[in-house]
Amino acid sequence: MGLPEAMAQGRALAMYRYALKVEYHGAPFVGWQRQVDLLSVQGTIEAALSKLERRTHNIAAAGRTDAGVHALGQIAHCDMDQEWDAFRLSEALNYHLKPHPIAITACAPAVGDFHARFSAHERRYLFRILSRRAPATHQDGLVWQVKHALDVDAMQRGADVLLGKHDFTTFRSTICQAESPVKTLDHLQISEVETAGGTEYHFDVRARSFLHNQVRSFVGTLERVGAGTWSPDDVKSALEARDRAACGPVCPPQGLYLAGVGYPQDPFSG
Amino acid sequence: MGLPEAMAQGRALAMYRYALKVEYHGAPFVGWQRQVDLLSVQGTIEAALSKLERRTHNIAAAGRTDAGVHALGQIAHCDMDQEWDAFRLSEALNYHLKPHPIAITACAPAVGDFHARFSAHERRYLFRILSRRAPATHQDGLVWQVKHALDVDAMQRGADVLLGKHDFTTFRSTICQAESPVKTLDHLQISEVETAGGTEYHFDVRARSFLHNQVRSFVGTLERVGAGTWSPDDVKSALEARDRAACGPVCPPQGLYLAGVGYPQDPFSG
Repeated sequence: MGLPEAMAQGRALAMYRYALKVEYHGAPFVGWQRQVDLLSVQGTIEAALSKLERRTHNIAAAGRTDAGVHALGQIAHCDMDQEWDAFRLSEALNYHLKPHPIAITACAPAVGDFHARFSAHERRYLFRILSRRAPATHQDGLVWQVKHALDVDAMQRGADVLLGKHDFTTFRSTICQAESPVKTLDHLQISEVETAGGTEYHFDVRARSFLHNQVRSFVGTLERVGAGTWSPDDVKSALEARDRAACGPVCPPQGLYLAGVGYPQDPFSG
Repeated sequence: MGLPEAMAQGRALAMYRYALKVEYHGAPFVGWQRQVDLLSVQGTIEAALSKLERRTHNIAAAGRTDAGVHALGQIAHCDMDQEWDAFRLSEALNYHLKPHPIAITACAPAVGDFHARFSAHERRYLFRILSRRAPATHQDGLVWQVKHALDVDAMQRGADVLLGKHDFTTFRSTICQAESPVKTLDHLQISEVETAGGTEYHFDVRARSFLHNQVRSFVGTLERVGAGTWSPDDVKSALEARDRAACGPVCPPQGLYLAGVGYPQDPFSG
């Protein structure tokens, strides 16, 4: 942050920036982004920071996850007036974050002009579908449960259609604020995973950036392919329609995880 | 159940026995065993059965898990007046078990004189320790968290001391009601597992039967070995002391899972 900007905000120059790796359970939150009088991940972390330096804080993150969406490796940064030992900062934050299901799992001084959002060149999402008849117990709230088996090969053929640079209007929420619907999808790999609780289907989705609801629109549509209601070719037609109405059902948030963020240099490797 | 016993209970002869595979999250329950006015797994399943056949039910299970202990593969049986299609019975039970975190994941007509408790020749438990500084979020309540790393080789050397037939008085709750403290431990294998949430240590423990608190006494003691406070030889001394006071700290229940039960013939393979 430059001096004029800091002065315009009427507070001391932020001297020390720290990168934070953040894990959270999405259920209690309205999402990442701060909202007045509602419990957000951003607001909860900022409140914990206010216990350490008594002023308002304004943190940035690589992905502004929606209500109910989890994170395994969200990356944020905070600007501190005083210099902190990174380990001590993460311990102090975890102490003040209790009892909220948010954990700072890594912390390091930012190098150069690192910005959690603007420096990121890749976002990685995981989506978990649990397929079984009996209700989920241990995994309740951590997966999207369907009662039928899914054809993973058919889903992968549908997914392959989406790879590359496309106008993704079909797979974009109508309230999406991105300037352009054109994005490049780098990776969408679906695997069948046997777990103690039953068969899961894991979607590993990677791109520089995503449109609003893009992953959930992909997964909801591909689930229809896995169930046999749609063909992989139907996914192609839906993509080419460039029409939100052509999308399959958008799936619920509780199977979605922001798994990781890529930067030119790993902020925690130093 | 024989005719005289059924008549003594003042109800119709139980004609149809079904084996049930049961998964549950232990947190809300006082344990498996029914207790008046308290929420138990047994009582909750019996209440669901009463919705199907309107009378009192009395089910049996292979392992009477303690408060807070989970199950992945508890095995129980129920006796029904009418013949049920096994799939329909499991679906009806799962419907009536809502919203409790109990799921019937398999159901089959019992063969011969199958008894969920007395026919079992092996109980398999899993214990999960999560090792990391930051508080658990997604796995909160599903693992025992310690903040330090553990030496898995040292723990395994300590575990090996416990294998075989021993007087396990040291590793037995003082309220244990088993007639003898002598049991045979068939298997105690510890593995280090990298998960999305950090390093876990999984204890795979198998025996024909266990004493009360035996697994949690093992794990609590072996954790001390992993942390370096105890040596593997100290485990040997503790075992040979045959004295409850020689046991390490008993670990908490939320990392413990009844993973499976062995029978001469798999009740669900038919």
